[in-house]
Amino acid sequence: MKTKIRNRLATLRKLMESEGLDVFFISGTDPHMSEYLCDRWQTRKYITGFSGSFGEVVVTPESAGLWTDSRYFIQAGEQLAGTGINMYKLRVPDAVPVVEWLKRNLKQSAKLGVDPVSLPLATYRIFEKELKGLNVKMVFMPHAIDQIWENRPAWPNKSVFELDISVTGESRADKITRIIDFALSKGATGTIVSALDDLAWTLNLRGNDIPYNPVFYGFGYFSGTKKIVFINKGSLSDDIQENLKNEGIEVQDYDGFYSFLTNISGEYLFIDPATTNTSVWESVRHINLIVEGTSIAANFKAVKNSTELNGFREAMLQDGIAMVEFLKWLSEKIGKSPLNEYHIGRKLAFFRAKQPGFRGESFAPIVGYADHGAIVHLTVDEHNANLILPEGILLFDSGGQYITGTTDITRTVAIGPVTPEQKRDFTLVLKGMIRLSKAVFPAGTKGMHLDILARQALWENGLNYGHGTGHGVGHFLNVHEGPASIRQEVNLNDIQPGMVFSNEPALYRPGLYGIRTENMMVCVEKESTPFGRFLCFETLTLCPIDCNLIDMELLSPAEINWINHYHSMVRQKLLPLLKPGLQDFLMKITVPLE
Amino acid sequence: MKTKIRNRLATLRKLMESEGLDVFFISGTDPHMSEYLCDRWQTRKYITGFSGSFGEVVVTPESAGLWTDSRYFIQAGEQLAGTGINMYKLRVPDAVPVVEWLKRNLKQSAKLGVDPVSLPLATYRIFEKELKGLNVKMVFMPHAIDQIWENRPAWPNKSVFELDISVTGESRADKITRIIDFALSKGATGTIVSALDDLAWTLNLRGNDIPYNPVFYGFGYFSGTKKIVFINKGSLSDDIQENLKNEGIEVQDYDGFYSFLTNISGEYLFIDPATTNTSVWESVRHINLIVEGTSIAANFKAVKNSTELNGFREAMLQDGIAMVEFLKWLSEKIGKSPLNEYHIGRKLAFFRAKQPGFRGESFAPIVGYADHGAIVHLTVDEHNANLILPEGILLFDSGGQYITGTTDITRTVAIGPVTPEQKRDFTLVLKGMIRLSKAVFPAGTKGMHLDILARQALWENGLNYGHGTGHGVGHFLNVHEGPASIRQEVNLNDIQPGMVFSNEPALYRPGLYGIRTENMMVCVEKESTPFGRFLCFETLTLCPIDCNLIDMELLSPAEINWINHYHSMVRQKLLPLLKPGLQDFLMKITVPLE
Repeated sequence: MKTKIRNRLATLRKLMESEGLDVFFISGTDPHMSEYLCDRWQTRKYITGFSGSFGEVVVTPESAGLWTDSRYFIQAGEQLAGTGINMYKLRVPDAVPVVEWLKRNLKQSAKLGVDPVSLPLATYRIFEKELKGLNVKMVFMPHAIDQIWENRPAWPNKSVFELDISVTGESRADKITRIIDFALSKGATGTIVSALDDLAWTLNLRGNDIPYNPVFYGFGYFSGTKKIVFINKGSLSDDIQENLKNEGIEVQDYDGFYSFLTNISGEYLFIDPATTNTSVWESVRHINLIVEGTSIAANFKAVKNSTELNGFREAMLQDGIAMVEFLKWLSEKIGKSPLNEYHIGRKLAFFRAKQPGFRGESFAPIVGYADHGAIVHLTVDEHNANLILPEGILLFDSGGQYITGTTDITRTVAIGPVTPEQKRDFTLVLKGMIRLSKAVFPAGTKGMHLDILARQALWENGLNYGHGTGHGVGHFLNVHEGPASIRQEVNLNDIQPGMVFSNEPALYRPGLYGIRTENMMVCVEKESTPFGRFLCFETLTLCPIDCNLIDMELLSPAEINWINHYHSMVRQKLLPLLKPGLQDFLMKITVPLE
Repeated sequence: MKTKIRNRLATLRKLMESEGLDVFFISGTDPHMSEYLCDRWQTRKYITGFSGSFGEVVVTPESAGLWTDSRYFIQAGEQLAGTGINMYKLRVPDAVPVVEWLKRNLKQSAKLGVDPVSLPLATYRIFEKELKGLNVKMVFMPHAIDQIWENRPAWPNKSVFELDISVTGESRADKITRIIDFALSKGATGTIVSALDDLAWTLNLRGNDIPYNPVFYGFGYFSGTKKIVFINKGSLSDDIQENLKNEGIEVQDYDGFYSFLTNISGEYLFIDPATTNTSVWESVRHINLIVEGTSIAANFKAVKNSTELNGFREAMLQDGIAMVEFLKWLSEKIGKSPLNEYHIGRKLAFFRAKQPGFRGESFAPIVGYADHGAIVHLTVDEHNANLILPEGILLFDSGGQYITGTTDITRTVAIGPVTPEQKRDFTLVLKGMIRLSKAVFPAGTKGMHLDILARQALWENGLNYGHGTGHGVGHFLNVHEGPASIRQEVNLNDIQPGMVFSNEPALYRPGLYGIRTENMMVCVEKESTPFGRFLCFETLTLCPIDCNLIDMELLSPAEINWINHYHSMVRQKLLPLLKPGLQDFLMKITVPLE
């Protein structure tokens, strides 16, 4: 593999030389700024060998670098070793982001090659602004990836299916009307829907083009006069095509989108620089007025309606049953059968697959035993999985796509004797999870304001974790969804009622173990007072927390109460749905703390 | 007064008409973007009658508006009544800032008049960007204020004095070298020091041009080749002029600054758009390269050195003695002599003035009894002061300029029977003050991350306050100092060791009473661990908190401990400095809580 990578870099460098480039940038995403990628757009993995979900790549004639964050420091270190590619750490003190690196290392009037189709407009803008002083010339090479990638995989184009309004709670006609009305209110006549989950949400359609994300490749163009979906027509059944047509939605070929844009006139478009690629921008920039902002569909999609929320609650019942079955199975197997992390991941999927609403996993399960627990987003296979011994702690982060909602849960459990330090660490992380769960805050509060609640107990003890605390979760859609989030970074999107988030503080001790406890929760109204409208969270996830890992000395009475209430809710909701043996098991692992 | 205001508006409108303007904007500040203003630059007050410290003004032929924040809603409402000027509320849900109002109300190609000398460059940029779509033309009228203001006060030009290095801890030569080196590191050859407190700090000089702020009018220009202070030479003694000259610092006339800038060449300047006025920008924009960022001096000034911090601690001893004397006096007078809020304010200054380091008040004392307590920044005079009865609660916010540091303290005390609701409110505010005081956080944390600690107990009870939680405090300089702050608004300046902040959560019940408890604190190092460098706060203010207002049921054991530790520190530091009668009083009011 290392040799392959070196050869691929050599091919890219040859292309760069022939084009007179001083540097080439690979964004690591696809034309829709997707986080998860189909094979065709695994450009970052193809060129570096790094299989993580986030990373930007810079190649010069002499050097190559991969920029990633703390989730992947260990994994990238291992995967890049011997390739000649350096890792650059992001989100650490004194981090040097790509653009800063370019500023420091490029010479005056350097030529920077990019694939505009997979370059976010927002990144293009940053490059343009920051590299202006150096007079750097950006060279658009829309065919560069094809040229360097031998046997590049084709577009997936798997078949698309329709969701009933009993699941979505809102017809696509109403959604499209809302989107166009919003664009009009901002002075535009229409908008482009570029992110794949935005498009799937808008159209009440789902697909299978990307692993774990039930989306399909396409663009939407919605204005007062035109409603068009650009998609591989082969992925649409005759029925769906007929339905769309009857609703006044035109279907055109995916490939025709850019030339369509080049030819529009008289329209003022609302676009989102974060999810629009630079080729789209090149195609529409002849329009006089472009209004920019966060994707309209993304903003609407993030606020779940009551049908969607009831769907989430239904999905949580199924996910909870699967988790209890899994926990019982685990407790019976540990120390008796030889088990490794890979088996655990498969077993989690096995129990979920028994549930009627299950449509697949929502991401590759992360199962970390001992030192692997400290590798935040490691995916193991049968060959590199840690063997699990009946001691210490096991972390598993997994989730399901159910027809009525997406789940994402992490539990960390004792699978034998644990040390006082492990209990202390677990309890400090749990305190953070509880404090965020109990947060009360006025309308207008952002995730960056709340994030400290999940970290304060760790910080007080000189501890921390290097990733965000909470991400939005899609409704039978992507497990990571914007635009709001709960993390330190500036994000001006309010936490609004109806938004569903993960709550996942953690602690990683490299070489030893990792701890993470993750529930999903929905923001709900709490009260309105003369001092404003106050919001809070309702926890959605239904799965016991391992009390064997709790150091009671570290919990306040209010925190103990929270755990007991939570476990009582889990019992109340799951017990009626469980078989007797599982009922006894659930009762046993949710005995109230005193 | 109301008639006067109407006449002044009429004069402005006549000028607008003669210049063909559709709207005139008054920033409400001076050429240095000062918060506190000398008489000459009280333009906002002259034109509207509103005497608060923050507000922007928009005048059209038909309407006039004052934009201010919740500190001043009540006061502005009273002062604007009958003037025909509307109040527009900022920092409330659905607030419409000036620029948004202009966007909604100006017609295409409207002409907007501004005084560029008192217009922050940052505001100019926002106007330019946001009003571009309307093709609004900005008309610079540097003489407009002179034209409409009959008998406009002259520049103050009071005498300037020098601070010894035993007080500042760093020579001005070293400060200027640091500033120039930083400018060089950013690709500039020099910088402009525009904010008056930045200039005073840089030069180790103080003045008396602005009430409460020991600053003087001037600009600094510091580059590798030129060190110049632009100042009214009459305000400098021969000794100071000689000292500056010997150190290679040229003195030029204040008025010559703009033409000096027009003529410079070969220099690349670092400027701060927030503290640079638009006339300065107009004068330097012929330079090819302008680097922009937060004022270099402001960043350096915010991080106090150990001499300055020891000075703060010394000032706190003096301030603490004055406060204890005041509290004893208050406890003896209440119910016996007729007292009003104005007397209280004078008495606070009287006790401070007895202290050897005292050089004046750091702001006009805010003394609020009963309903006045809910008016956040009210300044009362002898005529409108509330009479103080021996019941309920009294809030007083005051501070001193000491030669070694600036103080700012608010206490809220029971001056007779109080209600359970008042105690509950006081205790919830106090919990916030304590939680922020106890905060532990990694290097890189911003004030917007910490702010929730001061509010969470209030939010949980449907309560809130409409202002920030903490502002920087100058070292024998402005009581409000940037660039970092502790508030919800985005502020990307890190909280760094050596920075001094107020910590002042509050609660205001309009028409009833107000509560605020404010200490000053300094950020210090806590520990370095494998998870990073952690910081915390050390409280500087030395003055008892009124335990009669505490509802013990609402405090955690850790919070009670904090109060007892705080009071024990206050005793330990102040007792040796107090006369016997005051010692007994301090002992009595700091009896440990149980």
